[in-house]
Parts: sequence; structure tokens; C-alpha cells
Amino acid sequence: METISVDVVIVGAGTAGLNALHEVQKRGGHAVMIESGAYGTTCARVGCMPSKLLIAAADAAHGVETALQFGVHAGSDRRIDGPAVMQRVRRERDRFVGFVVADTEQIDASRRLRGDARFVAPTRLLVDGWVQVDARAVVVAAGSAPWIPQPYDGIRERLLTSDEIFDLPDLPESVAVIGTGVIGLELGQALHRLGVRTTFFSPIDKLGPFTDPQVRRVVRRQLESELDLHTGIEMLQVTESSAGVALRWRTPAGEVREESYARLLVAVGRRPAVARLGLEATGLALDRNGLPAVDPQTTQCGDAPIFFAGDVGGHRPLLHEASDEGRIAGANAASWPNVQRHERRAPLAIAFTDPQMALVGRRFVDLPGGTSAIGAASYDDQGRARVAGRNRGLVRVYGEVGSCRLIGAEMFGPGMEHMAHLLAWAVQQKMTVQAALAMPFYHPVLEEGLRTALRDLARELKALARCRPEDFADAPGD
Amino acid sequence: METISVDVVIVGAGTAGLNALHEVQKRGGHAVMIESGAYGTTCARVGCMPSKLLIAAADAAHGVETALQFGVHAGSDRRIDGPAVMQRVRRERDRFVGFVVADTEQIDASRRLRGDARFVAPTRLLVDGWVQVDARAVVVAAGSAPWIPQPYDGIRERLLTSDEIFDLPDLPESVAVIGTGVIGLELGQALHRLGVRTTFFSPIDKLGPFTDPQVRRVVRRQLESELDLHTGIEMLQVTESSAGVALRWRTPAGEVREESYARLLVAVGRRPAVARLGLEATGLALDRNGLPAVDPQTTQCGDAPIFFAGDVGGHRPLLHEASDEGRIAGANAASWPNVQRHERRAPLAIAFTDPQMALVGRRFVDLPGGTSAIGAASYDDQGRARVAGRNRGLVRVYGEVGSCRLIGAEMFGPGMEHMAHLLAWAVQQKMTVQAALAMPFYHPVLEEGLRTALRDLARELKALARCRPEDFADAPGD
Repeated sequence: METISVDVVIVGAGTAGLNALHEVQKRGGHAVMIESGAYGTTCARVGCMPSKLLIAAADAAHGVETALQFGVHAGSDRRIDGPAVMQRVRRERDRFVGFVVADTEQIDASRRLRGDARFVAPTRLLVDGWVQVDARAVVVAAGSAPWIPQPYDGIRERLLTSDEIFDLPDLPESVAVIGTGVIGLELGQALHRLGVRTTFFSPIDKLGPFTDPQVRRVVRRQLESELDLHTGIEMLQVTESSAGVALRWRTPAGEVREESYARLLVAVGRRPAVARLGLEATGLALDRNGLPAVDPQTTQCGDAPIFFAGDVGGHRPLLHEASDEGRIAGANAASWPNVQRHERRAPLAIAFTDPQMALVGRRFVDLPGGTSAIGAASYDDQGRARVAGRNRGLVRVYGEVGSCRLIGAEMFGPGMEHMAHLLAWAVQQKMTVQAALAMPFYHPVLEEGLRTALRDLARELKALARCRPEDFADAPGD
Repeated sequence: METISVDVVIVGAGTAGLNALHEVQKRGGHAVMIESGAYGTTCARVGCMPSKLLIAAADAAHGVETALQFGVHAGSDRRIDGPAVMQRVRRERDRFVGFVVADTEQIDASRRLRGDARFVAPTRLLVDGWVQVDARAVVVAAGSAPWIPQPYDGIRERLLTSDEIFDLPDLPESVAVIGTGVIGLELGQALHRLGVRTTFFSPIDKLGPFTDPQVRRVVRRQLESELDLHTGIEMLQVTESSAGVALRWRTPAGEVREESYARLLVAVGRRPAVARLGLEATGLALDRNGLPAVDPQTTQCGDAPIFFAGDVGGHRPLLHEASDEGRIAGANAASWPNVQRHERRAPLAIAFTDPQMALVGRRFVDLPGGTSAIGAASYDDQGRARVAGRNRGLVRVYGEVGSCRLIGAEMFGPGMEHMAHLLAWAVQQKMTVQAALAMPFYHPVLEEGLRTALRDLARELKALARCRPEDFADAPGD
């Protein structure tokens, strides 16, 4: 057995792990990074990048299908070349992954170990049973893996997750999408627009990430107008054959229905990849999912010299958060036992459906009772959205009554990825609604819809008479 | 002769005039608004809205033409239905104009006069020679009109400006666009993408609004790859016939060339519509264009009780600025002689070309020598832009060395209308580059390209060692 002693050992060479390594080395620490799988981040390999590539093809197909409203006739022999669609997705994905892999391989080989890492003591890991790594502190950045629940975990040949779908040589004839969360809706809507017969199933009634009942209502109405959605169902039987997968389910009305699909896409979420880490050897208190409690501002687990960063920590499984957590974990592991708290960025989550979905700051369910106000704006008739034939959606913006500060939003509509950045920056700066209304809004832009919501919020706050009315006197946009 | 006495008389019922009227009435003032033409704003009737409608059709056509890169075949018999394109433009435009006209007509008829207004004394106007209006203060919001210079002002039948182009029943076979500024490029590129043979001519070498030589270089390379551009030419002869317009011009190399087009679109800018206002009767000092000096913070002309708002003032001929100026002018006219200064919003100008163009805050030519630093990012390989097949452009961001504050940007690339809002809000808030880097940037988004430019700027500022290095220590995005 070989034994290595380092300041910091990092489990996982994804976004969080790479950032942690960089941070330790920047501080002069001695670190080693262990990876059990292929190099390349979840984002580049199976997440953000390939999904956006598939969506880009779906956008192109949707643009062709809807061009007639503008006086543009697509040809009668228009068609989608499935292998070509998937080839572009893979070619571009491989390019993005290639950069990450190249960067990773440029790291000094002595700093990289390949193999399965397993805790044998709080700061001691065994790699593939033959290398022992002792460290002053550990960064766990082991990532996440798609979760495949009952009764789908018996399916093998016909089952896809977001880890496999981008490797299909062609678009399937039909897909049953299990899950109507962000990943299910993003991928399923893209497949639908690329001509794949697509049906969505979920045992719960939720579509996307929203908690605001008014936004949820608009989302449901809009998505139901395009997609074949079956929510609130009970899946009774899943049978695999050489031709495909037969599903039998009970509708909320109690009716039993059956249908077959070429493929099953299970997209019910990802789970922290901790099964083989031997976390019980850390001495940390673990919950029933086998996970320790992690402080998001330090990434530390309790008082231990163990730091969880990225998806494995389960805080906000998003690339930009994984980057930050990697840096925080690296810094704190390197300076252990001197652990510093770091301000986190304003929450920002975006789903690249059409219309897009976004959550900023506090969600509706997180609003403090009695001290918040809500402003709303529909995009159903918003000027610029209507010009582009994309006038659908609802934005709800939340403000704090005492301070008149913007504290959050749930957003569904065109270009919400951009509106959400504007608002997330405002929330992080603790901007008041009247300050936001004093900012420039061009014309005609989608941002004017956001302004409508901000004006509505300003009226609400004024009506609640807990913000000083004179604060609103000079809001030029009001 | 009828005589009316009011607190404020407003000349023009466009965006600035309507806002001024609203502001005067809100303050309990007695106002009358005079309009010589049809109701409806420049923006709704001939500006922002119809141009964006034409561009929306062009986007659809361009999407169909470029879908193949994603594996989507648009069909061999695809075609553009010119009358249908123009019908949608007019239908939607008429709807937008209809709202403005209805709002205007809901104003008490005693507050509205129709006819040509002409100063006969500093605060006395004559309307069509038969109604005399006396006021304590005057708001001039007479708008602007397309300028038609020599040698094009002799052309009648075949000449279009942005005031007429949207009323064409069909797309023309070909168009010579005179002018490569914002309006010429927006409309001309749209026509080109809608299958119109389009050639651009300009006596100067400028494309769009940019002053930054590096941005200008990228703009030229990009636009030349798509459009037939003839800049730096001398137009020798313009001849109109029943078939079209024949142009003869000298190239920068001295060669004389000739070509004929079905239509001539003159888009060399708009000029304040003051010719018939009789401004000489105001006693104001007028420049050689017949215009008084206007203070942008008060909209006042010198010490007179005369306020210029909107395009006629020539400050920033943009809808959102006209709105603000109308409100400022209305407030100051109503409270005359108590004139207040108002903070203006951070400068923001966007051109809806593809890629889009935007100016934020200070332009390159306005940078103070020696105390500014520049950060840049190309969009030629930006992740999300590449996913969408729109990876072209350059962003240059300007910062102040002493304060590390963001002070401006010139931007050319996809989605710049949104990037420009984010940056304009930051500039108005006097945000530092390190504060901007601490804000959330999602992945994969176009905003990450902006972040690349901000990081570059942060490096420059650090290198110049006039910002304290510790200010950068905790920029989590850096």
C-alpha cells in the first residue's frame, strides 16, 4: 500500500473539485484530487451544455414551424434530420468537454489520482484499496447521479436518463418522460418540438420549479396547450419489450390507461453520489439519505475538517453555485482550522423551457407572512413579446414592506434568463423597488414587462403604507 | 380670433407631449396640447414598433435559412410572402398606434387643439392662425422628421424614409439604403433577410453608433460578411425613372459605378421638427440649425419659460428619454418659475441589428484620458452564443481607474439588448467592477461573455494599481 500525505484531499474532479484544487494551490497548499470516472464536468458532459444544444435544435425546429405568422413559409418538404440533430449536439458537447478534460490533464499528474475514493477515517481515504491518502482536510465534491425510482429501476435497455440521452445516434420515435421538473420539461419539450411523440408523467401536480400559485396556473395553462401532460397519476405497471416500453397508469379521475413508447426518459432529479464514499467512517451525523448537514456559507460539515461542495452538498445543484462552493471549500480546507464564512450570491435558477422559467431570491413559499408585497405582470400582451410572437407568461415580483426592497421573484415568460439576471443583481444589492424604477428601461424590450411588475409592486407597497410615500415621489419610471 | 389662457401650452401630442400633459395635470395645472398631425407617437407609428415588427419577420426568415446547422431542413419550396409580411407589420403597428390614439382621445377635448402651432411671442402661440394661446410656460415637444439631404431630395415617387416604408403593400424587389447608421442598418438588414436585394451607401465610413475602434473593426468584418456595403463613397448622380432609381457613385478607390434599384430608402437620421414653429419669436438664441440650447436636466431653454422635450430637443432621441423629458418639462413648466434639476438615467442606446449593437454610459470617445481602463470579451467563441449558432461580436467595457467603477461600454453581439440593461443599471448605480463580479451569473448564458469582459477590466484595473488590490480579493466571480 502506497501512502500519500497532503494538506487537502479532494474527492471529485468536476466543477467544484477543480475550483477547490485551484483555490488550495493558490494559497500554497498541497492537494490531491481523486476522480473515479471520466474527466469532464456534469455540466459539460450531461447537463447544461448538451441540454442547451438539444434545445437550440428544438428552437430552430419551432422557428421553422411558426414562421408563417410572420409571412415566412417554410417548405412543404421540411423535415428534421434526427441523426444530424444528435451529431451537432455531440460534436459541440465533445468540444466543450474536451476543453475541460484538457484543462484537467494539464494539472500536474502528481496532483491527480484515478480510482474510487472511500473514507476509512475522518481525514483518511483509500483509493481503489491500494493508495491511502492522509490529509489535514477533505473536500468532498463527488457530484450527483440521476435518480431512478421504483418502478422504473427494473428497466434497462429502453431507459434513458439525462446521462445517456445525448448519446442516442438518432431521435427516438417516441418518449415517455417521467418527471415534470426542470430537466424533464427542458428535454421533453425539446424532443416534442423535434418531432418526437412525447408524453409527460408525474405522480405530483407540479410543473417546473414554481411555488407561486398564480405562476403555476399560468404555467399549466401554457404547457398544456402544447404538451401531452399527465400529472397526478399513479404508475401501475412498466413493461419492457424489444419494441419499447409499455406503461399502465391510473389517472387522477381513476381511469386506467395504457400506452407504449420507444423510450423511457426518467428525469425525476439527481441525487448526491455518496453511496460508495464510506461516509460512515467520517463520524459525521448522517441523515436518512446518508448525507451530513452542510453549512452553505462555509461548506463545512459540522465542526469536522470535511467540506462538501457542488451537487453532492445538495444546497443548490447549479454550475455557478458549484464553482463558488468549490472555491469556498478549497479556501477553508486549505486554511483549516481557520474557517471563514462567505456571502453567497443571490439565488438564481433558470429553466430553458419555452417560455423560460426562473426563480430569483426568495420564492413565494419563503415569503415572510405579513411583511411582503407582490407585484405582477402578464406577458400575454407585453409589447415586444407580442412583436416576436412570444407573448405568453407571468412574472411575480416580491418586495419587503418595511424596506421596500426587492426580495425575490418567480418568472415565466420569454427571455426570462435575462430578466432574472437583472432582478437577481437587484436583489443581491438590496435595491428598493423605487430605485429599480429609476433605472433605464429601453423600448421596446422585454424588460418593460418586468417594469410593469415593479410598478405594480410599488403601488402595493404604497397602499400598504409601510414604505414612506415620499420615497416614491421621484421614481422617474413610475 | 379665439384666445385661450392656460398655465402650460404643449406643442406636440407624441410621447414627450403626452407625458408633459399628464405631469402638468397631476400637479393641478391647466394645460392645452396642440398637435398638427395625426395622433400616435413617432415610436408607435414609424419608429421602434414597426421596425421591430419588420425585424421579427426578418428573424423568422433568417431562422428558416439557418436551421440546417441544427439538423433542421426548412424545405426546398420555402418562400417569403411579402404582402403577408407587410400586413402583419401594419396590423400590429395599427394596434399599437390605436392604443395611443384612444388614450389621447380620452383626454378632455378642451385640453386638445388640432392645427399648426406657431410662436408669436415667447409664451404666446397661434394655432392655424385663428386660435391664440397664452401660457405661463411652453413645452415644445414637436418631435422630429426624417432628414432627406442632397442629392436625394429631388426624388419623389421612389423615395422611402422610415416614415413611409411600413406602408408598402409588398416588399420591394430591391432597395438602395442611404445611410449606415442605426435606422439604415436595422431596416436594411431586415429587408436583406426578407429576400430584398439590398445595397447600403454612405459617404462616411461609420457602421452603426460605435466610436470604439476595436468594436468598429469587428462590426465591419461581421456586417461585410452578410451585407453589400458601400461606405466612404461619393454619390454622383441619382436618377428616378418609372422603373426605379439609378445611382452613380464613386468608390473610395476612385472607380465610378452604376446600379439601379426599385426603391431608395433614405435613412440618414431624423431632425427636430422646428421649421414651422416660428422659434425666432421666442427671443431664444438659435444655432445655425434653428435650435435653442436645452439643459437636459431641466429641459429648459436658457432662462426662458420654454422647455424642449423629446426628439425636438435633440438630447437623446429615444422613447424612454422622451418620456422622462416630457415629465421633467411638464413638472418644470407647471411650477414655473420654480425650475428643478432632475437626474437623468444612465445613457442606454440599442440597435436591433443582428448581432445587436448597444452603447451604455460613456462611449469610448468620451473616456477621460489616463483615468480609464478597458476590458474586452469576444463573442466569437462564447459558450451559449455558440450553442445557439450566434457566436459573433465584441464587448468593450470601460472602468474608472481611481474608483474602479463601471462607466460605460460599447457592445456588439447576440442578446446585447439584455446585456446592455444589466450594465446600464450597474453604471447608474456607480457599481465597481469587483461588485459586478460578485453578482450571480448563471450558466450557460450570454451574460458570461459580459463577465469575461468584466474580469478583463478587473485585471487591467489591478495592473494599473490605482484600485486597491484588496478590493478584488473577494470577488467570487474572479
